Amino acid sequence: MERVKVVEIKEDITSRNNAQAQSIRDELKRRGVFFLNVMSSPGSGKTTLIVSLINRLKKDFKIGVIEADIDSAVDAQTVSDVTGVKTVQIHTMGACHLTCQMAYESLEALGIDGLDFVILENIGNLVCPAEFDTGASANLVILSVPEGDDKPIKYPLMFEVADVVAVTKKDVLPAFDFSIDKAETNINMRNKNTPVFFVSAVSGEGVDELAEYLKSKAMKITEA
Amino acid sequence: MERVKVVEIKEDITSRNNAQAQSIRDELKRRGVFFLNVMSSPGSGKTTLIVSLINRLKKDFKIGVIEADIDSAVDAQTVSDVTGVKTVQIHTMGACHLTCQMAYESLEALGIDGLDFVILENIGNLVCPAEFDTGASANLVILSVPEGDDKPIKYPLMFEVADVVAVTKKDVLPAFDFSIDKAETNINMRNKNTPVFFVSAVSGEGVDELAEYLKSKAMKITEA
Repeated sequence: MERVKVVEIKEDITSRNNAQAQSIRDELKRRGVFFLNVMSSPGSGKTTLIVSLINRLKKDFKIGVIEADIDSAVDAQTVSDVTGVKTVQIHTMGACHLTCQMAYESLEALGIDGLDFVILENIGNLVCPAEFDTGASANLVILSVPEGDDKPIKYPLMFEVADVVAVTKKDVLPAFDFSIDKAETNINMRNKNTPVFFVSAVSGEGVDELAEYLKSKAMKITEA
Repeated sequence: MERVKVVEIKEDITSRNNAQAQSIRDELKRRGVFFLNVMSSPGSGKTTLIVSLINRLKKDFKIGVIEADIDSAVDAQTVSDVTGVKTVQIHTMGACHLTCQMAYESLEALGIDGLDFVILENIGNLVCPAEFDTGASANLVILSVPEGDDKPIKYPLMFEVADVVAVTKKDVLPAFDFSIDKAETNINMRNKNTPVFFVSAVSGEGVDELAEYLKSKAMKITEA
């Protein structure tokens, strides 16, 4: 780097709400509910992957889905129509993430009695949702091939808080300058223990393996 | 909608900084500097499009570029290497957007004496940057084909504040379920006066037209 200056501008964006998250996680564990927080950029294929996962997991679990969006009920309607599972649409009224308080209210709005696997589709945003522990049992972070293999370099926190990463839209790999090796290296640079699944909801490739992985994680809570 | 409940959760995320933005805009106008704020999701092709635009505009303007990222200097290095224009990398230290104060400090870090066209590549985020007026002369919002034509439905504010929209990665249109008509309808639902350019930085399609449009907007300030 020669010509380029690097300037650091600080701004305090401390989250005030994370203390509460652990108690939500503990309560869900006591009640035998696995709570999966799904985060990614807009348009990475969250809803499509969630539908594919539900269709593989609904024989083993009683699933509920929270769809969080700034506006519209497009995703909740899709999930509900295609999978038939219990679904609630949350509007954040402009907010770019869910706090754990908002997640808790969403769980209450959904109603988790009789459920043992709840999926939260967070706001499409690779920055802010990572800063707010929702009380989830695990964070599934999605990176889509068209976004590029460099995203873990530019959005570090999201990949640091990921318990598992799914790289989606693998079917369009030939159309993009995206390296599977670089993606894996960049993800593991942020979090060396995070398993990475390369999937295509179109062809189905990799989705069984991801579903099996989530099943094994969930059963540690639902069968405890 | 039958099965799906819609719950509205409010959170106050008022921006405290917008009052200052107009005075920044006025100062830049007095100094004859057109300031373009480029916003989009991560991985939508902002940097690639910016490079393509600079190569078309640098014969007419003295251009400077501010690259804002949470981490890394990848983009600034690319822009600087490929175009040779004056470039500064800003790190927001985790922040998901630039306030106008941060934009002003970035302009000072870049040094705008002798420049008449400054491009700010904002943080890749379709939510928060829309809430903060940076003092820019115009907002260019990018939506890439792989993200889907429904994004203006889900992320209303970003498309409401757009002065011009570029739909990028048109070359991969055949690989995605994306309708140009629906995209245009959804964008104009949020802002009926926003011109929409469909472009491919790979094939060059549409980039000349977008560059000409930006040139005509900029000349209103630089030649005033």
